[in-house]
Amino acid sequence: MRIKLNCNYQNLKKNYLFSEIARRVAEYGASNPPRRIVRLGIGDVTLPLTPSVTRAMENAVAEMGKKETFQGYPPSFGYDFLLSAISAHYAAYGADIGTDEIFVSDGAKSDAGNITDIFGSNPVLITDPVYPVYYDSNVMAGNGVTFVPANRQNGFLPPPPAEKTEGALIYLCSPNNPTGAVYDKAGLKAWVDYALETGSLIIFDSAYEAYIKGGLPHTIYQIEGARDCAIEICSFSKTAGFTGVRCSWTVVPRGLASGGVRIAELWARRQATKFNGVSYIVQRGAEAALSEKGYSECMELVGYYMENARVIAELLNKKGIYYTGGVCAPYIWMQCQDGLDSWSFFDKLLKEAQVVGTPGAGFGANGEGFFRLTAFGTREDTYEAVRRLDAVL
Amino acid sequence: MRIKLNCNYQNLKKNYLFSEIARRVAEYGASNPPRRIVRLGIGDVTLPLTPSVTRAMENAVAEMGKKETFQGYPPSFGYDFLLSAISAHYAAYGADIGTDEIFVSDGAKSDAGNITDIFGSNPVLITDPVYPVYYDSNVMAGNGVTFVPANRQNGFLPPPPAEKTEGALIYLCSPNNPTGAVYDKAGLKAWVDYALETGSLIIFDSAYEAYIKGGLPHTIYQIEGARDCAIEICSFSKTAGFTGVRCSWTVVPRGLASGGVRIAELWARRQATKFNGVSYIVQRGAEAALSEKGYSECMELVGYYMENARVIAELLNKKGIYYTGGVCAPYIWMQCQDGLDSWSFFDKLLKEAQVVGTPGAGFGANGEGFFRLTAFGTREDTYEAVRRLDAVL
Repeated sequence: MRIKLNCNYQNLKKNYLFSEIARRVAEYGASNPPRRIVRLGIGDVTLPLTPSVTRAMENAVAEMGKKETFQGYPPSFGYDFLLSAISAHYAAYGADIGTDEIFVSDGAKSDAGNITDIFGSNPVLITDPVYPVYYDSNVMAGNGVTFVPANRQNGFLPPPPAEKTEGALIYLCSPNNPTGAVYDKAGLKAWVDYALETGSLIIFDSAYEAYIKGGLPHTIYQIEGARDCAIEICSFSKTAGFTGVRCSWTVVPRGLASGGVRIAELWARRQATKFNGVSYIVQRGAEAALSEKGYSECMELVGYYMENARVIAELLNKKGIYYTGGVCAPYIWMQCQDGLDSWSFFDKLLKEAQVVGTPGAGFGANGEGFFRLTAFGTREDTYEAVRRLDAVL
Repeated sequence: MRIKLNCNYQNLKKNYLFSEIARRVAEYGASNPPRRIVRLGIGDVTLPLTPSVTRAMENAVAEMGKKETFQGYPPSFGYDFLLSAISAHYAAYGADIGTDEIFVSDGAKSDAGNITDIFGSNPVLITDPVYPVYYDSNVMAGNGVTFVPANRQNGFLPPPPAEKTEGALIYLCSPNNPTGAVYDKAGLKAWVDYALETGSLIIFDSAYEAYIKGGLPHTIYQIEGARDCAIEICSFSKTAGFTGVRCSWTVVPRGLASGGVRIAELWARRQATKFNGVSYIVQRGAEAALSEKGYSECMELVGYYMENARVIAELLNKKGIYYTGGVCAPYIWMQCQDGLDSWSFFDKLLKEAQVVGTPGAGFGANGEGFFRLTAFGTREDTYEAVRRLDAVL
């Protein structure tokens, strides 16, 4: 075959983080470890869907099985019932987002990855460490990426760089995956001001917003000026346990434009051409998750995971180990011990404690020397992991 | 904002076909038409999901609501149970497709649109008229497209062009949307030979394969040599009525490579980065659709629609109007009457018969002068449309 392939793929690192973890765990698991392996690695949820969501999806399946209530192609950007529920969710945070500014899709990962489609070649700023999709999708698109280092000095909440980059795409994630660090209003305002000053666009990933307690911003649209410089991607995965259900949304404010072209129009065209909407059944489940009863059930899920986070954080406090996260986020980002690099620390915990976490280096150069533990395990697994870590740390 | 946008989007035509139809129908509908408007336009199904599918999805929802059976992130490329069912579906056609060659996704439209991601800039051959996504996604990617004209002379089944284009991406759809024409083995073999000779890659869309009767090929892998030059995209939308459920798959034979790079590896990387798998609930429904009982139920849906097609075709036979399709495909592609162009014919049928079809020009230049009717309406609507068309044609 003499087809030209996208040569940018050659610049991707060979192994995706989680497949490498799976490989090492499988290899170690084959050697008869002394105890069951406890996984606090991948950011997957473990609690079942809530009663309201389950009921709504059961009803939706039944509707799909009857001629009078069957639903064919969904609207490209989401059913009105779900768009209204999402709009109301924003209103509860004091953010005014119209239903015409919301695009429902099958996952934050899809949108975070596909969003590069609508842009030309721009400078890209990505905080490091970070969720790998932002970087990989820009490598695939052939875009040059500049990392903004997050580290102990800035509490893993880097401010905008001193040097002004004109017309950049800026990826921010708060609460952050992997560090669990959360920007306050002043921290986000600095980025919004930077974007407005440089004519840049912020792509804000708020997938973990449901874990925020207190007055920290849940959405970038709580920051003045954000409607003029930011897209936001959010998800039901971590709020409602939808990792296996698949539903998310992206907000593109209707006024956002560059060179007279509305960004919402490009995204709409992209989605209408390369996507065909989310399953009716899934959207009914998502709607239920945002209902009053459904949302309080979701907050119980969140509460369960955050108790896990508290227990992990308590151990690290006791040991005097530096970490971020765990308070308004389901991730705990801890410093590796004994001067180990993060993959060596991974191997150590796997071999000595049979506990699986995620090596920080997998999230970028500034993740080296750090390690991510998630609060998404079961309570029993979390207690067990904490007991074992107490013995080896 | 001073962001560079993807300037290729400016080369897209302003209105997407179906939104323009919706606009004209809404405008006409507002003027108090004498009768209810009957829609045989968009290719959406109308029959409900079958009992086997409904039951499987109800069970899956219930599983998701229990801790012991809850499913988190699905495998990026599909659950083994579904991959095995799809592999067996191919085996029934005599095609040997391994589970490692199948990538499950949320829709044929998604895959047909996203596949450009993994290629560089290649010449692109697209038969015309054709499903607009092939063309639009290549315009978005900035690829030059050469149309291969389908017309009355070749029965809307164009053979490969006399001129050999080296290393081309070739889009074929059989049974064809919009023409309903179906390649026989010799017709497909000519394309496979052309691709092998020129080092080209065929992207074969078989979304309507379930409508084929008799010995015509259901999959391009029934053609010798196809494993060395073809990707295939197929869907549950039209087989099992999944337009509102969303599930499809793409086959990338493991041996397909260019310049030593395996195409399956690029597609796997693309999907693992910009997609996160299909809902567990949906995949259980899809599995049920391919079970023995489930598939025979699906064949009842297909039979229902094909009886609609027969009734429409009968009218056109009676009137002596040229058409393709309607025998092994749910589309009837008819010549416009009275020398009208296809949008004028659309307006005529809307105003005189209150019947909505799809203007052929929306599918490409060679669609001008033709008109698509679908068999996906209800029996009652189809009879009503045929009665009305009988009066005005």
